Amino acid sequence: MLTRAALEQLDRDDPLAPFRGRFALPPGVVYLDGNSLGPLPRATPGRIAEVVAREWGEGLIRSWNDAGWIDLATRVGDGIAQLVGAAPGSVAVADSTSVNLFKLLGAALTLRPGRRVIVSERDNFPTDLYVAQGLAAFLGGRHAIRLAEPGGVMDAVGDDTAVVMLSHVNYRTGAMHDMAAVTRAAQERGALVLWDLAHSAGAVPVDLSAADADFAVGCGYKFLNGGPGAPAFLYVAPHLHAGLRLPITGWLGHAAPFAFEVEYRPAPGLAQAVVGTPPILSLVPLEVGVGLALEAPLSDVRAKSLRQVALLAALIEQAAPGAFRRVTPDVPARHGSQLCLSHPDAYAVMQALIDQGVIGDFRAPDILRFGITPLTLSYAELWDAAAALGVIMAEGAWRDPRFAVRRAVT
Amino acid sequence: MLTRAALEQLDRDDPLAPFRGRFALPPGVVYLDGNSLGPLPRATPGRIAEVVAREWGEGLIRSWNDAGWIDLATRVGDGIAQLVGAAPGSVAVADSTSVNLFKLLGAALTLRPGRRVIVSERDNFPTDLYVAQGLAAFLGGRHAIRLAEPGGVMDAVGDDTAVVMLSHVNYRTGAMHDMAAVTRAAQERGALVLWDLAHSAGAVPVDLSAADADFAVGCGYKFLNGGPGAPAFLYVAPHLHAGLRLPITGWLGHAAPFAFEVEYRPAPGLAQAVVGTPPILSLVPLEVGVGLALEAPLSDVRAKSLRQVALLAALIEQAAPGAFRRVTPDVPARHGSQLCLSHPDAYAVMQALIDQGVIGDFRAPDILRFGITPLTLSYAELWDAAAALGVIMAEGAWRDPRFAVRRAVT
Repeated sequence: MLTRAALEQLDRDDPLAPFRGRFALPPGVVYLDGNSLGPLPRATPGRIAEVVAREWGEGLIRSWNDAGWIDLATRVGDGIAQLVGAAPGSVAVADSTSVNLFKLLGAALTLRPGRRVIVSERDNFPTDLYVAQGLAAFLGGRHAIRLAEPGGVMDAVGDDTAVVMLSHVNYRTGAMHDMAAVTRAAQERGALVLWDLAHSAGAVPVDLSAADADFAVGCGYKFLNGGPGAPAFLYVAPHLHAGLRLPITGWLGHAAPFAFEVEYRPAPGLAQAVVGTPPILSLVPLEVGVGLALEAPLSDVRAKSLRQVALLAALIEQAAPGAFRRVTPDVPARHGSQLCLSHPDAYAVMQALIDQGVIGDFRAPDILRFGITPLTLSYAELWDAAAALGVIMAEGAWRDPRFAVRRAVT
Repeated sequence: MLTRAALEQLDRDDPLAPFRGRFALPPGVVYLDGNSLGPLPRATPGRIAEVVAREWGEGLIRSWNDAGWIDLATRVGDGIAQLVGAAPGSVAVADSTSVNLFKLLGAALTLRPGRRVIVSERDNFPTDLYVAQGLAAFLGGRHAIRLAEPGGVMDAVGDDTAVVMLSHVNYRTGAMHDMAAVTRAAQERGALVLWDLAHSAGAVPVDLSAADADFAVGCGYKFLNGGPGAPAFLYVAPHLHAGLRLPITGWLGHAAPFAFEVEYRPAPGLAQAVVGTPPILSLVPLEVGVGLALEAPLSDVRAKSLRQVALLAALIEQAAPGAFRRVTPDVPARHGSQLCLSHPDAYAVMQALIDQGVIGDFRAPDILRFGITPLTLSYAELWDAAAALGVIMAEGAWRDPRFAVRRAVT
C-alpha cells in the first residue's frame, strides 16, 4: 500500500527537485503533458523580452551580426547534440519535424537510388507516415512504403529497403526501440536508418554516435521545453556529410549566403540544413530550454522517469483497481517517459481529469497518455493525479455529457 | 534646391505620420532597412509577453484550443490575403519562404507533368534559384531551369515551361514586374506562374486575384514587420485547391489531424499547406505586424513610397553630385519601395553610413540599398540620410580600413 507520505519522502530525497523552481507552473495543476508541450522555464520570458526590445527593437538588422542571430540555429543544434550523443556540427535546428523528415527521407532515397522501399511502422506518429506518403507520391509512385506491425520491423526490411524510419519512443504507447540493435540489423541489409526522437530527446539517454544511426529528427517543444511550435532539429551522421544532398536547398544553407551567387553550393557540414531564415523569436526560448536540459544529468532524469512511470501505474491501480489496461510496456528498458492506459471512454475520462486540474492527454482511439517530465514533476503529484482519477472513476464523473464534446485539439 | 524645411512640411501634411508612433525605433537612427527586417511595433512586446506568460505558462497545452493557437496560421493568412488581393482561405502562413517555394514549385511540376522547364530570372533572389536547383537535382535531372536576363522573361517561356517563378519586386534593384501582363502572357503559353512577394506584400498594391496568379509566396519579416525570421506565407489560387497536392504533407495539414489516421488526406483548401506545428511565438508578432499593415490604406503607402524614393534620389544627388549610379528604374510604375544605387566601393560606403546611424544595406557586388517604409520613415529623415552620405563622400570617410572588414551578414 503506497502512501502520500512515502512519496513526499521521495521528493525530499530527489536530486532533481531543485529544477522544479526553474519552471513557471500554474497553481492547482498537475501537469502530465510535458511530452506534448513542455512547461515554461522561468528564464524564458525575460530572455524573450530582451531579444524583442533590445536585439530586434534597438539593434534592428544589426543583430544578425551583433547578437549572433546568424549562428543561433547551429549553436542550439550543438547543445541538442550533447543530449543525443551526436558530434558537434552534426545537429542543426531548423524548420518543423515534418519538413526535416522530408529533407532526410529525400536525402536517403538519393543515397540509395536502387532501392525503392521506405520501411516504417503502422503505429508510428502519423506525420512520419504522411511525409513519406507525400514524398513517394511526388516521386511518381515508383517508391513504396512498407508498414510493419509492432515488433515486426526487421521482417519488413529487405534488399529493396532504402531507409528504415522509426520513432525511438512511440507517441501513443511509450514503447521504446533498442536503437543500436535495430540500426545494426537494418544496416546489415543495406538500409539507412532514420530515428524520430520527438519523445526521446531530453527524456531518455540517446547515443546516436554509439548506435551508428544515419539520420535523426526531433522536436523542440516537448521535453526540450522550447515553447509552442519551437523549431525542430535534424541529425546527419558526420560520415554522410560530404556527399549529402538535401532535396530542399535554400539561401542560408549556401556556402556563402551573402555572396548571392546564382548557383547553389552547400555550406559545409550540416549548416546546409538551415534552408531559410530561422525564426529567431522561437529559437531563443528553445536555447533556454536546451540549456536547462543540459544542466540535469540524463542518468538522473532517466532514473526518476522510470520510477515515476512505475509509481503512477501502481498508484492508479490502487486508486481505481482494474479500471484501465496498461498499454506502455512493463519492462523499463522498453519504454520511454510516459504511461499510457487504455479505456473505452478514454476521451471523456481525460476531459474529466483535466477538469480537475490533472492535465494529460487523449490519443485516439482509446488511450489516456500521461507524460512524465522529471525536471518538473514531483512524486507527491503522482499521488494527487491518481487520487483524482480514482474519484472520477468511482463517481462516474466522466459520464457528464460535457466531457464528451470533442475539441479541435485533443 | 530641396530644403529640410520643405521636407518637414511634407511630414506635417503626411496622413501616415501617426503610424510612426506605433513603432519603437531607437534614437539617433535613420532606418532604411525595413525591407530586410521591419522595425518593432510597440504593441508587440506586450502581446508576446502575454502569450508567453499566460497562454504558454498558465494555459499550457490547453492554449491550442483556448487561445486559438490551432487556427493562428490560417487566421494570419487571411489577414495577409487582404494585403495581396487574395480570397479568404487562399493564403496560409507556414514555414520559410524557401520551403514554401519548394512546396509550390513541386505542386506546379505535378500539375504540368509533360513540361520540364522552370523559368526564372538570373537576378532573382538566390533562394528562389537554389530551391529550384535542389528540386530539379532531387528529381533526377529530368528538369531544367532556364534563367532569363532582365527584360527577357517571356523570351524564355515556351511549350516546355511548367512554371514561371519571378520576384514581383527585385531584391537588389527594386525593379517591379507588371504582374498581370506577365501572368497572362505566361499562361497563354500553358505555364503556371509563381510570384515571390517578399518585397511587395505590405509595400506596394498587389492584386493576385485580378492578375489571375496561380501561386505566390512572401515574407513575414520585411514590410509586414513580423520580427526576425517570422514565418512566411504562400498563396494558391482557389481554382487550384481541389486538385492540389503538395510534395510535403504533414500532420497539421491532414483533414483530421487528431484522428491520427495512417493514410494522409489533405485538409480542405490551403489548410493542407500548414505542414508541421507552427511556431506560435513567431506567429504572434506577425499577427501584430499584419494587423498594423491592414490599418494603413495601401494607396497612401504607395503614394508616400513613390514620393520618398524620388526625394531620396534627388537629395542624394544634391548632397553628393554624380557619386552614384541609380540602379532602381526611374519610372514609378516599374519599381517597388526601395532605392538602389551602385558604387564601386558600395560595401565600405554603406558601413561608413551605418556608422553614422543611417542604416541601409549592401547587396553584392556593388549596391547600396535603401528600403523605404512609409509607415515609419519621415521625409525629414531622408534629408538627414542624404546629408550624412554627402559628408561621407566629401570627406572620403568610407576609406577608413575598418569599413572594409566584411561581416557574416552584409
